[in-house]
Amino acid sequence: MKIEYQPIGIIHTPYTDLAGMPIQPIGAEGVEGTVEVFAEYRDGLQDLDGFSHIILLYHLHGSTGYKLHVMPFLDTEQRGLFATRAPKRPNPIGLSVVRLRKVEGCVLSVENVDMLDGTPLLDIKPYIPAFDAQRQVRSGWFAKAIGMGAHKKSDDRFR
Amino acid sequence: MKIEYQPIGIIHTPYTDLAGMPIQPIGAEGVEGTVEVFAEYRDGLQDLDGFSHIILLYHLHGSTGYKLHVMPFLDTEQRGLFATRAPKRPNPIGLSVVRLRKVEGCVLSVENVDMLDGTPLLDIKPYIPAFDAQRQVRSGWFAKAIGMGAHKKSDDRFR
Repeated sequence: MKIEYQPIGIIHTPYTDLAGMPIQPIGAEGVEGTVEVFAEYRDGLQDLDGFSHIILLYHLHGSTGYKLHVMPFLDTEQRGLFATRAPKRPNPIGLSVVRLRKVEGCVLSVENVDMLDGTPLLDIKPYIPAFDAQRQVRSGWFAKAIGMGAHKKSDDRFR
Repeated sequence: MKIEYQPIGIIHTPYTDLAGMPIQPIGAEGVEGTVEVFAEYRDGLQDLDGFSHIILLYHLHGSTGYKLHVMPFLDTEQRGLFATRAPKRPNPIGLSVVRLRKVEGCVLSVENVDMLDGTPLLDIKPYIPAFDAQRQVRSGWFAKAIGMGAHKKSDDRFR
């Protein structure tokens, strides 16, 4: 079974190289980017400006191949791929919650971008805490890495 | 540009019809399902059991076509598609945060499932509040619908 998708837009960010990037939106606080939605989808953006945060799903076009064990940027041990947010995945779909500043025509101004410039956009969803925010959470290996995410930058291990 | 993905597993739930389903995990609290990950990806599940919640990305295989304006289950006005979580989208990728109960071999036991039985799985990511939970949030049209999500069931409008 093959599943085929097509980009609905392009994400523009200051990052042109996989090394030296913030590793999550938390490390990209205030970093501005734009999401250019293709004109044919423009009408679907109505009402989006009421939301302060949106979920971007995108194709991690800089990533090819994958390994089932990886060393995360925020850890010192190999972990199972699906217990990490590493970009090289069987289906390299990226997910970021970003702050939406404004919507002008087909262009969304966003903050906290952590993806590569030119990233193909797959979907936009409104961020809704009742659905998306969990509070009572165990964070596995990541628990000891909390706080590192904001400062650590990527290197070239997933190039 | 075409982007091709392949399922990495199948999600099993009690729901075999698009009508009468919970419309989000919040309406599916305690509903049990299983995620069957294909054997070739099994090693990637290591360390996942440390996380109480995981993000499932999946192909909304019951959805075909889309309209750029939709009437959400929780509203009485037409809204721009990307300001809703409606399943009929240009790229029908579903996203649910579910509770992970246990991992046995290739099978994850999960709770709060809100997808159709037999849904093709695209990716699993650990839910990490530092990345995924936003607190200071404006929720647009959804603000007045908060609280309805837990009780409302789907009908056949997105069949």
